[in-house]
Amino acid sequence: MLTSSEITQRQEQAARMINNAGIYLKPEEVRRLEIADFGLSEFEKTGLGVLVYVNTERCCAKELAMWPHQTCPEHRHPTVGTKLGKEETFRCRWGTVYLYVEGPATQSPHAMPPAGREHTYTVWHEILLQPGEQYTLSPNTKHWFQAGDEGAVISEFSTRSTDEHDIFTDEEIQRFTQIKD
Amino acid sequence: MLTSSEITQRQEQAARMINNAGIYLKPEEVRRLEIADFGLSEFEKTGLGVLVYVNTERCCAKELAMWPHQTCPEHRHPTVGTKLGKEETFRCRWGTVYLYVEGPATQSPHAMPPAGREHTYTVWHEILLQPGEQYTLSPNTKHWFQAGDEGAVISEFSTRSTDEHDIFTDEEIQRFTQIKD
Repeated sequence: MLTSSEITQRQEQAARMINNAGIYLKPEEVRRLEIADFGLSEFEKTGLGVLVYVNTERCCAKELAMWPHQTCPEHRHPTVGTKLGKEETFRCRWGTVYLYVEGPATQSPHAMPPAGREHTYTVWHEILLQPGEQYTLSPNTKHWFQAGDEGAVISEFSTRSTDEHDIFTDEEIQRFTQIKD
Repeated sequence: MLTSSEITQRQEQAARMINNAGIYLKPEEVRRLEIADFGLSEFEKTGLGVLVYVNTERCCAKELAMWPHQTCPEHRHPTVGTKLGKEETFRCRWGTVYLYVEGPATQSPHAMPPAGREHTYTVWHEILLQPGEQYTLSPNTKHWFQAGDEGAVISEFSTRSTDEHDIFTDEEIQRFTQIKD
């Protein structure tokens, strides 16, 4: 849960990070930038800023902004009816991202899940993304990611985004941020 | 037709434009950046640089670099068999782009087609794209675009790219650049 003024402040911070990555946003894009706290009300730990550039029936592109050590919690994009689950590519533009996917667990991973929610992080195959590095996820693959010391800006290229169908490992998560006032 | 050393030089120029737009490319990405002259051997007039980040069965993302007043010639992305034609979104990152699509012809358009090939430019509905501005094209829509005075860098988000199926209005065009040596 966030207040409207907290959301405005976070939108401006996210826009600054995205601008620092060399990406120009229009003022109306900053105002519709989503500040997602996943219903956990600990935004700096679990959350991210999301600007959707385009999301048609067939494809989608977004810019993601993450605060230092902030985590996007573990989830997957399932197939729904005849619609194959979302496929996504993350390309790091600025900062450092630790992405975790299904596969052999990495010994001594860099990221730590948000305190108290460790049980909801189950995949530990680490992929390090720095500017210019990218990774493509198959549909329905469990994944989560955390920004490094400076935060991160990530471009996401994907098939259609249908956030309402995302399945989070943490059952307390609500994908859509509630506004307090 | 271009020589290998011309291609290397153009790749470096394209990478500089893309870097100036704030986008970091890895050295191996610069080496595989496509320098497309559309078989017309007048690259600074008709051509562009293309870096494909990802192109799966379902979606595609690219960075396009254009030299001052350079033109990407008129073409469309048809439906092939049961595969619906490519849908694409152009987002201007740097510079100015004049995009022309089907629709009411713009009086006094900004761009001029490359000299001698004017007859192969038939759609004249102008869309001006400056940094942070974008436009989504439906499949099979004829379109062409030209960079402004400084050149341009454009992000393209789309469904799968199958360049071999593109239909150009100019029948002399060959989509794939031939290398001289």
